[in-house]
Parts: sequence; C-alpha cells; structure tokens
Amino acid sequence: MASLASRLEHAIKPDALRAYLAEFISTFLFVFAAVGSAMASKKMMPDATTEPSALVAVAVANAFALSVAVYIAANVSGGHVNPAVTFGMAVGGHISVPMAIFYWISQLLASVMACLVFKVTTVSQHIPTHGIQQEMTGFGASILEGLMTFMLVYTFYAARDPRRGPLGAIGPLVIGLVSGANVLASGPFTGGSMNPAYSFGSALIGGRFKNQAVYWIGPLIGAALAGVIYDNVVYVVQTADGIGV
Amino acid sequence: MASLASRLEHAIKPDALRAYLAEFISTFLFVFAAVGSAMASKKMMPDATTEPSALVAVAVANAFALSVAVYIAANVSGGHVNPAVTFGMAVGGHISVPMAIFYWISQLLASVMACLVFKVTTVSQHIPTHGIQQEMTGFGASILEGLMTFMLVYTFYAARDPRRGPLGAIGPLVIGLVSGANVLASGPFTGGSMNPAYSFGSALIGGRFKNQAVYWIGPLIGAALAGVIYDNVVYVVQTADGIGV
Amino acid sequence: MASLASRLEHAIKPDALRAYLAEFISTFLFVFAAVGSAMASKKMMPDATTEPSALVAVAVANAFALSVAVYIAANVSGGHVNPAVTFGMAVGGHISVPMAIFYWISQLLASVMACLVFKVTTVSQHIPTHGIQQEMTGFGASILEGLMTFMLVYTFYAARDPRRGPLGAIGPLVIGLVSGANVLASGPFTGGSMNPAYSFGSALIGGRFKNQAVYWIGPLIGAALAGVIYDNVVYVVQTADGIGV
Amino acid sequence: MASLASRLEHAIKPDALRAYLAEFISTFLFVFAAVGSAMASKKMMPDATTEPSALVAVAVANAFALSVAVYIAANVSGGHVNPAVTFGMAVGGHISVPMAIFYWISQLLASVMACLVFKVTTVSQHIPTHGIQQEMTGFGASILEGLMTFMLVYTFYAARDPRRGPLGAIGPLVIGLVSGANVLASGPFTGGSMNPAYSFGSALIGGRFKNQAVYWIGPLIGAALAGVIYDNVVYVVQTADGIGV
Repeated sequence: MASLASRLEHAIKPDALRAYLAEFISTFLFVFAAVGSAMASKKMMPDATTEPSALVAVAVANAFALSVAVYIAANVSGGHVNPAVTFGMAVGGHISVPMAIFYWISQLLASVMACLVFKVTTVSQHIPTHGIQQEMTGFGASILEGLMTFMLVYTFYAARDPRRGPLGAIGPLVIGLVSGANVLASGPFTGGSMNPAYSFGSALIGGRFKNQAVYWIGPLIGAALAGVIYDNVVYVVQTADGIGV
Repeated sequence: MASLASRLEHAIKPDALRAYLAEFISTFLFVFAAVGSAMASKKMMPDATTEPSALVAVAVANAFALSVAVYIAANVSGGHVNPAVTFGMAVGGHISVPMAIFYWISQLLASVMACLVFKVTTVSQHIPTHGIQQEMTGFGASILEGLMTFMLVYTFYAARDPRRGPLGAIGPLVIGLVSGANVLASGPFTGGSMNPAYSFGSALIGGRFKNQAVYWIGPLIGAALAGVIYDNVVYVVQTADGIGV
Repeated sequence: MASLASRLEHAIKPDALRAYLAEFISTFLFVFAAVGSAMASKKMMPDATTEPSALVAVAVANAFALSVAVYIAANVSGGHVNPAVTFGMAVGGHISVPMAIFYWISQLLASVMACLVFKVTTVSQHIPTHGIQQEMTGFGASILEGLMTFMLVYTFYAARDPRRGPLGAIGPLVIGLVSGANVLASGPFTGGSMNPAYSFGSALIGGRFKNQAVYWIGPLIGAALAGVIYDNVVYVVQTADGIGV
Repeated sequence: MASLASRLEHAIKPDALRAYLAEFISTFLFVFAAVGSAMASKKMMPDATTEPSALVAVAVANAFALSVAVYIAANVSGGHVNPAVTFGMAVGGHISVPMAIFYWISQLLASVMACLVFKVTTVSQHIPTHGIQQEMTGFGASILEGLMTFMLVYTFYAARDPRRGPLGAIGPLVIGLVSGANVLASGPFTGGSMNPAYSFGSALIGGRFKNQAVYWIGPLIGAALAGVIYDNVVYVVQTADGIGV
C-alpha cells in the first residue's frame, strides 16, 4: 500500500492531469446535453412538465450524452463523469482518495461551466434545477435517487469488468441506457439526477438549492453500496467462469 | 444426467446463490423502469393512454432497462430477468428445474419489491397494471402476449448462442430492442408485458388481478415453443456454417 | 457456375429450408412491430397523422424490430427480411435465383400472416396501409422509396462485408437505424416502407392496393443499384486497405 | 513530407475517388434524414416548433442517420460526412489539404442534392433552414455551435483511435449519439447543425442564407480545437496505457 505522499505525487503526474481534463470534458458534455434538453423542452412548450414527449427528450439526451461521455474518457480517466461513480470507485479501492478529490473538482467545475455557458449563449432567464414532487418527502426522494444511482454504479462496475469478454465493447452504451431508463421512471418525481455534479451545477447557476441534499446523500450511499456488493458478493474474483451463460 | 439430489445440491452452491441475487437485482432494475415510466407518464398527463408519446416513453424505458438488466447479469445468471425466459431455458435443458424454481422466486420477489418501493417513495395512489383492451378476448390477448414472448425468447436464444461470433457482443442490446418494439406494437392492446413477473408484481401491489392468466399462459407457451424451435429446427448444432451470410 | 438443376437441388436442402424458416420468423417479427406500432398510435389517437410523436413511435418500432430481425437470422439466412434486399443480393450474385424466389415467398407469407394475426387478435377494423401524400405523384414517391431502399441495401452490403473488421459486430443495429431514420424523414410523404413484403401484406389484409406499384418499383430498382455500386465502385475487392481510416 | 505535386497526384488516384464517392453517399444519407425529419414534423404539425416530440423526431433521425453515414464510409473515406470534421482532421494532419478540398466539394454537393431531391419528390414549398432564436446574438450562436462541434469532432477522434481496443466497434454509434444529444439540447436555440454542409445545402435550396456564417465559423473553430486538444493534450501517443480504466 502506497504512502499518502506517494499517492499525492501520483495525483499530479501528467497522466493524472490528463485524467482530470478528460473528466472535465466528459462531464461538460453530459451536463450540457442534460440541462440543454430540459431548457429546450421548456423553450418549446412552457408547460413541458405535463407532456410525456418532454420526458422522452430529456431521457434520450441523458442516455445518448452519458454513453458518449463515458466512451471518450474511458481509456484516460475511466469515464466516471459523476462524483457518485468516483465515490463508488474509491470505496472499492479502484482510485486513490487524492485522485478522487481532483476528479470531484473537475466534475463540479465542468457542470457549473456547462450550465453557465448554456445560460449565457442562449440568453435564458433561468436554468432548470432538480426538484422533488410536492407530495414526496426528502427521505423518499433520497431513497429513489439512491436506488437509481445504485443501478448506475453497479452497471458501471459490470461494464469495466475485464471478465465480461466481448460484452465489454458495449459497456459505455449500457451505462447511458441505465441512466435514460431511470430518467423515464423518475422524471416527474425527482428529476432523475443520479449525479451530484449535475444537480450542484444547475442549482448554482439556477440559484435554487432547495432539496440539494437529496441529490448528494442518496447517490453517494447508493454508489458505495453498489461497489461493495459488486466486488464482494456478485462478481467475486474467483467466480471467473460463472453459471448458465 | 444428474440425479435430483445432486441437482438440488448444485442449486444451493455459492455460484447458484449469486445467480439468484443477480436475477433479483436485474429484475428489480427492469420492473422499476418499466413500472416507473408508466407511472411517470400518468403523473405528467392523467390521460396518457391517448398520447403516443407516453407509449414511446414506456417502450424506450422497457428497451433500455431490459438491455441493461440482461447485460449486468449475463455472466452470472445468464440474465433471464423473466420467468418465461427461465421456463424456455428449462424446456431446452439449459437450466435444471430446481435452479429454475429459485430463479422464478427471485424474479417474482424482485418485481414485487420494485413496485412496492416505487409506490412508497413516490407516495402514489396506485400502480399501473397490465390490462387488455375492451373489445379483445382473453384468448386473443394470450395469443398476442405469447407471440411476443416467442420473439423475445427466440432472440434470447440467438443472443446467447456462441456460434454467432462477433454478433454476441450486442446480444443484450438486441434483447432490449425486441422488447421495446413489441411494447410499441401492443401497448394499447395488452400493455406489452411478455414477463409474468412484471405482470404479477404490478398486479399484487396495484391490487388488480383481472386477466392475470393472460400474462402467464401466453408467455409460458410462447417461450417453450421458442426454445424448442430454436434448438431443434433453425439453429441445430450441426449447422455451424450456415448459408448466405 | 452451377447448372439450374444443381441450384434447384441446393434450394431444397435442409440448410436452405432452415433459411426460409428464418426469413419467415424475422419478417413476421419486423412486420408485426411495424404494423402494430402504426395501429397502436391510431388506437391511442385517431388523429395520429398530425402528431410527430406517432411518427417517433412508428420509426423507433421499425428501427428496433429490423435490427432484431436481421440479428436473429444473420447466421442462417443472411437476415434479408425484405424482398428488395434479396433482389439486391441476387443482382450481386450473392444468392441464387431459385433460392431468392423461396426467400420472397417466405417474406410475403410472413408479412401477410403478421398483419392477419394482429388484426384478428386485436379485433381491429382495419390495418394501416402505405399511401402517398396527396400532392405527390407516383413517380416522385417511387423515387423517394427507391432512394431510401438504396440506402438500406447499401448499408446491408456494408454490414455483411467481412473486410469491415470489428465494425461487423454492430451491423444489424446499423441496418435498423437506417430504416428508422428514413421512416422519420418520409413518414407523412410515402409512409417509409422500403420493403415490398411489408407493403404487400398490409395492403392484402387492409384491402387497399392503391399505389402498391410505388412500393415495388422504387425499392427493387434502388436495391439493385445499391448492390451494383457497392460491389463494383466503392468497395471493390482489391481495395482491402482503404484510405484515411 | 510529400510535395504538393505528389499530394495532388494522390488526390486523384482511384482510392481517393472512391473516398469522395463514399463521402457523397454518406453525406446525402445524413442530410436526407436530417432535413426530411424536420420537413415531416412540419408537414404533420405546422406548429411543430412548439412540440417537444418534433424535437425528438429530428434528434433521433440525426443520431440514427449519422451513425449509419459514418459506418458505411468508415473503411473507405474515414466517414467524415461533415466539412468541419474534415477540417479538424486536416488541422491534425490526418488528411492532406488537396484531398480535404475534394472532401468538402463532395459533402457540399451531396447536401445540396439531398435537399433538392427531397423538395422535388415531396412537392414541398420550402426546405427548413437553420436559424437562431430571436434573443440570441450571432456570436452566442457561434459559440454554441462551436462547442457542440468540438464535442462531435473530439468524439470522432476518440472513435477512430486504434488504441481504444474493443471500444472501436461501437465508434460510429457513439458519433451518432453525440450529434443526437446536441440536437436535443440546442434545437430551439440554433437548430443544432454542427455541420456546415448541412446548413449550406438547406440554405441554398431553401433560399435563406440569414446567419449562415454562424454555421461555418463556430463549427470550423470548434473542430480545429478538438483535433489539437485530442492529439496533443489528452490522448498523446506515448500514453498508450492510460489510468484508471
């Protein structure tokens, strides 16, 4: 096990700096499409919250953009694009804590920048933020976001597992699909974030931090659980041959 | 051929238990997105049954989620995610009967849990259940669901066939696509379940068992036929070289 | 070059019979989803021709179902699923004329069966048929359908080309995507068939043969051109190394 | 380094001519679906600019068609399908300037032809052109189009990078997805072109060149930056082993 000093040193090597840049670019790309599609729907139809086609637009943008964001960064930074994913990887020991912190900074910065650039260039009055449905409690919303992030991070673990053979080729696509499916399920309830950077960036530029905790607590717990269960229960290293496939 | 005792023993080994857990997680993920997207559409537009965009939302959620569910479980349990698929695999001799029974239990339990969690966290009045269109008979609906399940299970057999070469890499995606296409075709007629666990879970939590038999009889017969025809007629083992590709 | 007798003999061997069955199953699956999604949109909203979401539903069903149909038959029959594709392959010498005729019979029969089964099980008054927009001429519509079929068959040739390396793995998906894109472009103009079997089956069961020639002449000419250009101009055999990739 | 004369000679060899034809076919296919889907939505619902489902139709057509266009040309011309991509590749030294000029000519010609054929066959009054939203400035619109083209060309570079291993198989799909996601984000703001050939062709046939500069300046600068950053900062040649994947 490396000492803290050596880990810190590793965290500022050129390869690490490239990884932070890759996370920045990918998170920017993802948040740009996610926030942009919500704004586009609102622009076309101010009453877009009552229209399933607006939900489809946002979910498809989410799925497409996340697939791309993971794909372009996969060989450089691992393509986390999400502080919850980075947290889940850190819990599993797949990334050092100093590096994880720089990943978070890159992701949060990218999300803020994406929302800001979109707002400025489109001369928009406001940025849509994540919010929970009236009847729901913050606790219920956290569970929902946590469960969905569990699914996302579990899929992320599966997609990067070298034991999956040829299925590895479609990993980034599948990660996008789970995100899109969850947005379709949760859109009118919690907004379907599963990504604290996305929720933070839009809240900062949109100026509305209500229920922000929901989008941190749920996802971080869900991500940690996914990493623990994947590595220690379902796909333990010694089960390389599997069953029934 | 193994004796019943040895099969039972095999069915409670660690690898088998991991397979049941994988089926639980995948079926939960699938039913969560499938039921959630139907609820989300209804939440946005109470009259969603008259809006093709609600059908698109549900079908896309179905396709995306099933691709992911099959993908993440493929190397552990085979990624059945559906009692009809497990039945079709048992008929073809690809899974032992004791294990198939545990697969069913995991799938049914996961579906019930997904519906329950969604209902509780979103404080929803009810869960949408599968139902058949007024003019249709239960017999006609069973045939429709059976045909669609035939297509799903036939595709499942094709996707897991090692003789398919590089096409194996996109298998889980294609399984999701056939499900989505069938939902688009049958949505307003039978709901497009093709999955007894999904229909059972939503019926139990939604408290409406009307026409439940439709979603068991059709799919189980369709799945069994698909397995028999695939293995014995179309892709018989000795035709490894095929024609015209 | 084989004599007619030996070709006929080859056309009734077990491998050939399996290929016809595979074409039947795949064409049934495709037409079922294509016709079904058009009926589902109409069922939900009788005025679906004025709603872009109905177009999305039909196009996505088309894309998903064609990807699956090609995928499941690829290793047995080549996955034509379309008399125009079979014609294009026959023009290029990739399938013998006797076999091509049996392919056509299988495809036409499957399309008729799919429309019939859908009509009977859903107790529907009529089946939607392909038709051209009022202001358009049959000649213009034939050109449009021909161009789109050119794109489809050209993509088909590219997808089955063994020189494409790892890109071969996503071939069936790409074939579905070109079909879906063309439906989105041509839906309200010609319906976006690109498949004489599909147009014939729905016309026979729907009882409306107006403009049927449009859906045969254009696609067959487009398919033949695609095969000739692909094999003899763009991807000639001696250019295995390509440029600029 | 080759002399200008030898480069010009190379630019008219058979392999090069095939590449120009491949670019023509692919760009035709892409613009046909992109322009066609916009026209189809307008045909169904004249007020389509206020309907998110029209945005979904156009974005999905864009994504599907670009994936196919890149796929079918990948092994012949590299599958640029876009003058901005060709410019980005020329800046990175991956294509010679004389060849790039012929690529541009092929792409522009194909786009004009696609718009013309669609207009004539469908007897349409006009072709939809790219335009920017009222409150936005040309400068803001250029930045938006430039950013989106940066993402597209960066993804293009990643997709063609041989160091990506098995992920290369899904490259054309991912290129389509980034285009679709960006259309969903920018549709009602700038139209989401990212492709000067597409904007030029529709402007020429539609007879409306207002703000045309936006669709050239932004994309060309964005594409050049993407090439420079990809090759020199993120994926420099000596980092073949990467981090954290």
